[in-house]
Amino acid sequence: MQLKIALLGGDGIGPEVLTESVKCLQAVAETFDHSFTYSKALIGAAAMKKFRTPLPDQTLEIALEADALLFGTIGTLQYDNNPSSPIRPEQGLLRLRKELGLYANIRPVKMFPEIIKNSPLDRALVSGTDFEIYRELTGGIYYGEKKLSDDGTVATDICTYSEKEISRIAHKAFKAAKKRRKKLTLVDKANVLETSRLWRRVVKTLSESYPEVTLECLYIDNAAVQLLLNPTHFDIILTDNMFGDMLSDQGSVIIGSQGLLPSASIGEKHCMFEPVHGSYPKAEGKNKANPVASILSTALLLGHFGMKEESRAVIAAVRKSFKKKIVTPDILGSSKYGTDYVGDFIADHIND
Amino acid sequence: MQLKIALLGGDGIGPEVLTESVKCLQAVAETFDHSFTYSKALIGAAAMKKFRTPLPDQTLEIALEADALLFGTIGTLQYDNNPSSPIRPEQGLLRLRKELGLYANIRPVKMFPEIIKNSPLDRALVSGTDFEIYRELTGGIYYGEKKLSDDGTVATDICTYSEKEISRIAHKAFKAAKKRRKKLTLVDKANVLETSRLWRRVVKTLSESYPEVTLECLYIDNAAVQLLLNPTHFDIILTDNMFGDMLSDQGSVIIGSQGLLPSASIGEKHCMFEPVHGSYPKAEGKNKANPVASILSTALLLGHFGMKEESRAVIAAVRKSFKKKIVTPDILGSSKYGTDYVGDFIADHIND
Ligand SMILES: CC(C)[C@H](C(=O)O)[C@@H](O)C(=O)O
Ligand SMILES: CC(C)[C@H](C(=O)O)[C@@H](O)C(=O)O
Repeated sequence: MQLKIALLGGDGIGPEVLTESVKCLQAVAETFDHSFTYSKALIGAAAMKKFRTPLPDQTLEIALEADALLFGTIGTLQYDNNPSSPIRPEQGLLRLRKELGLYANIRPVKMFPEIIKNSPLDRALVSGTDFEIYRELTGGIYYGEKKLSDDGTVATDICTYSEKEISRIAHKAFKAAKKRRKKLTLVDKANVLETSRLWRRVVKTLSESYPEVTLECLYIDNAAVQLLLNPTHFDIILTDNMFGDMLSDQGSVIIGSQGLLPSASIGEKHCMFEPVHGSYPKAEGKNKANPVASILSTALLLGHFGMKEESRAVIAAVRKSFKKKIVTPDILGSSKYGTDYVGDFIADHIND
Repeated sequence: MQLKIALLGGDGIGPEVLTESVKCLQAVAETFDHSFTYSKALIGAAAMKKFRTPLPDQTLEIALEADALLFGTIGTLQYDNNPSSPIRPEQGLLRLRKELGLYANIRPVKMFPEIIKNSPLDRALVSGTDFEIYRELTGGIYYGEKKLSDDGTVATDICTYSEKEISRIAHKAFKAAKKRRKKLTLVDKANVLETSRLWRRVVKTLSESYPEVTLECLYIDNAAVQLLLNPTHFDIILTDNMFGDMLSDQGSVIIGSQGLLPSASIGEKHCMFEPVHGSYPKAEGKNKANPVASILSTALLLGHFGMKEESRAVIAAVRKSFKKKIVTPDILGSSKYGTDYVGDFIADHIND
């Protein structure tokens, strides 16, 4: 198979973890006789430095032409500490998601038995955790109009959802549930929000077309608790953009490190694969970021294009690194292995 | 001291846990020679049944005339499952908070060593947890205009914050931090939301008046992780209405049960005390709900009116119940003690 892959490293540790992912993709290409070509492009603060915009035209062009995108991470302390800046790195990512129509962000949370000791939660509780969060990614309060009064004293964000935006991701989520354990949990705040009530109505109506899937609805405050107390209860979780952002980061608590969770962002025409974690500015350039979330994102990419065996080979190599304790310090405090060493090890074991 | 206390049990387990709280308040009154009088009023689905409105005029009147309110919980499965109902139980609580001007919701999360084993999190990690969440309670997306298009296919919620709304609770939070470990964490999503950027600006400016307090800012997705991985890091957490709702429920994961967290809702003129947990419809009438969150809310009430010793006596009695394992099944699966038995035990030990 031939694939043109755009590499958007972004800020912080993004470019570093992406380097390791490309190593793994290359190992897959060699082992399974595929041809992957890559084009790098700037996004976020990195792009702002050079082009004064977080999403330069040439980046968008490369993204639109690629078969798939690998994304790193975005954001720097400089902008985090300067909330008044009119141009911000994250706008690059948000616009990119919108331009590519990546409305479904899928975040699998699966416990790896090899590192279960690393979870801060009771082992009996988290053992066997295996759920996927379907987060709506191009709507809601992320994309509604934003206003600041002229005197700068009143700010407004608008959250809007349409039936269409809800049903297209809901269909994807129901279909996924059908192929898994047939349980779908809708997370919302329908006791307070009008948009949540629309979600609940649309999803309930749709569920009639998926009689084999059991639908349950949870309020976000309760879901945030149940996810941690009873993670094996969940199969597919469906939720909006903002709730999905928070809930999915909690998944990393269950499996023991923010450096582990991959994600796939899917639209009608395009697809992008990115770690759930942030840009971790403190670790930038220190060769200590965990590349696994990004590497597992390549496994999602391969799976998305039907390369099942290839995807499994990447996951198997990651698990071998866990078994041999070839891991970054977030997984094992005493570990002396760096980002590149771990990436090399995983890439080297893909053809095992 | 004389206090007129309004009792608003609400729905689900609310009235049951409130009964136990009144027992404790009466034990305090007798032991310390105070005079508390009570007036009961309906709110939520319970009020809708009788008056067709979740906040009847007579309830609001009783609330406005009281020195303090004890609130139970709100919400029923009937309305949770019917997102299209134009009148809903929660509207009663939301309107009450607004009418009483209860803009600061304070949610202390403190680990009790007696039940640390009950936490699903690593003991070393949670031991010593002691932070307070200051949640803005009368603004944000909870109170912005809500719209549904005429054809029912597009829903909108508006989130608005003004400098004034932010600074009044921020002042309270900084003052609390000053008396404690002098650390304030602002939780927001300033990389995406305009309202969050206003929060960040206002709080940063205010922090100059509190030079002894260290301010840090965290994004909600990261905060949801750090709260669980590093709960002892936090002292005072300041956040908006929606983020506070989610974050505070997570506190119950740390300390091991949803049945434990109390809260105080404070305004210029009025104050209300309520458990953080929900109405738990499945347990209604079964004498198994944990009354401790509500009983600890009375400790906050007493403290609020300067009755420090009384407040400590309630907490001490609760801790005695933990020590003697006189607890509901959420704390000890094998426990056979019911809501009333636990409440009696705690009330009986207030004059120890
Ligand atoms: C960087 C930020 C805008 C982004 C988001 O909130 O979507 C990130 O947290 C994520 O989850 O991908
Ligand atoms: C019942 C609901 C409206 C309420 C809220 O979201 O504020 C509750 O969850 C709480 O936290 O007090």
